[in-house]
Amino acid sequence: MIADIRQKFEKRGRTMTPSNRKQALLPEGAAILPNPTGSAPGVIWQPRPDLTLMTFPGVPREMQVMWRETAVPYLQTQGWAESIIYSRTLKFWGIGESTLAEKVAPLLAQENPTVAPYANNGGVKLRISTRAATPEAAIACIDPVAEQIQAIAGADYYGDDDDTLATVVGRLLLAHHQTVGVAESCTGGGLGQLLTTAAGSSAYFLGGVVSYSNEVKQNLLGVEADTLEEKGAVSAEVAEEMAMGVKQRLATDWGISITGIAGPDGGSDTKPVGLVYIGLADPNDAVTHHRYLFGTLGGRDWVRHLSSASALDQLRRRLI
Amino acid sequence: MIADIRQKFEKRGRTMTPSNRKQALLPEGAAILPNPTGSAPGVIWQPRPDLTLMTFPGVPREMQVMWRETAVPYLQTQGWAESIIYSRTLKFWGIGESTLAEKVAPLLAQENPTVAPYANNGGVKLRISTRAATPEAAIACIDPVAEQIQAIAGADYYGDDDDTLATVVGRLLLAHHQTVGVAESCTGGGLGQLLTTAAGSSAYFLGGVVSYSNEVKQNLLGVEADTLEEKGAVSAEVAEEMAMGVKQRLATDWGISITGIAGPDGGSDTKPVGLVYIGLADPNDAVTHHRYLFGTLGGRDWVRHLSSASALDQLRRRLI
Repeated sequence: MIADIRQKFEKRGRTMTPSNRKQALLPEGAAILPNPTGSAPGVIWQPRPDLTLMTFPGVPREMQVMWRETAVPYLQTQGWAESIIYSRTLKFWGIGESTLAEKVAPLLAQENPTVAPYANNGGVKLRISTRAATPEAAIACIDPVAEQIQAIAGADYYGDDDDTLATVVGRLLLAHHQTVGVAESCTGGGLGQLLTTAAGSSAYFLGGVVSYSNEVKQNLLGVEADTLEEKGAVSAEVAEEMAMGVKQRLATDWGISITGIAGPDGGSDTKPVGLVYIGLADPNDAVTHHRYLFGTLGGRDWVRHLSSASALDQLRRRLI
Repeated sequence: MIADIRQKFEKRGRTMTPSNRKQALLPEGAAILPNPTGSAPGVIWQPRPDLTLMTFPGVPREMQVMWRETAVPYLQTQGWAESIIYSRTLKFWGIGESTLAEKVAPLLAQENPTVAPYANNGGVKLRISTRAATPEAAIACIDPVAEQIQAIAGADYYGDDDDTLATVVGRLLLAHHQTVGVAESCTGGGLGQLLTTAAGSSAYFLGGVVSYSNEVKQNLLGVEADTLEEKGAVSAEVAEEMAMGVKQRLATDWGISITGIAGPDGGSDTKPVGLVYIGLADPNDAVTHHRYLFGTLGGRDWVRHLSSASALDQLRRRLI
């Protein structure tokens, strides 16, 4: 190891100092824990039969590879990994953390598997965890609890682990062989951006119109000047005309729209900051809307995020 | 303090254990550092004249309030805060961290103010910091260095501190009394979303078209079927037609477009994943494009983020 480091220094035309020599030293009887992605190796050392020490470099990316590729296989050969910890995360939208926790309260108290709630960027997660000898045994322990929770949560449950509202809506649209278009005001493109985070979304997402100004709402979406005048741009009626307008112009099966007041300015007594309407035009040309009051506590970005996610969620509920 | 804790336990019908008693003890001569937002107080203790110890609870939110409201005023009365640390962050886009660091190398070596480079979500930041008696003295120390850096960096420098590409572009459009519309393909709405992160953006952002499919590019933006057929959807020609199309349909001063391959699929030898064209139609109906190769290392989300930010940056360079 000293030879290796000395060579590195010679290559760069620099002199090794005593402290560099010190870096190269290993405890007697210790082995090197190789680092395939970086320069600093780790150490595996058993100073006595009942004590194993392993050291890793501090760079998380390097440490993780070393842990996975060398440390875990080593520990398994030493009989250290007779059981695994296995978990599944169930995801929910449209229900608060405390409401969901109350509904599944008895499950939160049980010990195997454990169930723990987490807030999840406007939604909620429940993580089910168990320790078992094999993945199969863990899954057998987790499955019935997951089914119980899904039955309790109903449509508020949308997926597991890496699922997002966007990937779930995408899978549902693919299964139905249907397409969607978006018409956005206060989100400025955030709903389309969210839908297209899913790779392969071009199979069901055709596009949309960002109608930030009233002129664009009229000219590109066909929203009536009278509706804008009488009801205002942030209204159930405009949301529905936007949804129907984008569905017709893009010839999609579904049209979703968002119009709202993200703030910080633009609110009034009757239409406060955080008021958002989501419109939904369905394959039969029936159009509905949903009204949300997201408040001002979270700020502009939060209102916009909740608006886009809630729009996806409304489409999801119609597709399941 | 013990009486206070004992009372809390009695209220909850629980018995105080010796370890709870221990929590209530203060070193002799120490004072309580009050915690206005939580339950666990801190301690201020001067065991000898030249040593002051302060302890805080581990909850960051509680610690921060205690630091601001009690610790700093206390330290100031003790003569500990005769100088302040003041910093300004200069922000850059379109230049790599190492290239910028080389250009300003002599400044990185100096001691007052210090200048340190940071990567910034696809851009670069330089933080200029100094210690001074007053904010005015700090600014007088920082200003000439900031001016030097801005002169060296030229158009790659875009703003300070809380400035973003979106707020800077917004200020420039307001100053020019000009408006912008967007035409997006692979970003799916991300450019409009980014532009509208700035509060008040409705003064210059009218909207846009998300043309994920070729049909939407033709029908809503007027891109020629021949161009799509001959050059492909990801091409300089389509980028330019998209930019001009949205400018004309929205009657804006500027049109910006993005078309590219975000991946993970859809790449080819001649058009690899990460290839992105940005089109720019200006107030005189002149239209230009910029070609980027963002590669595959950062993944789909990274390509999309860099695309939207680079489009804003191209508009910024035209406006300054």
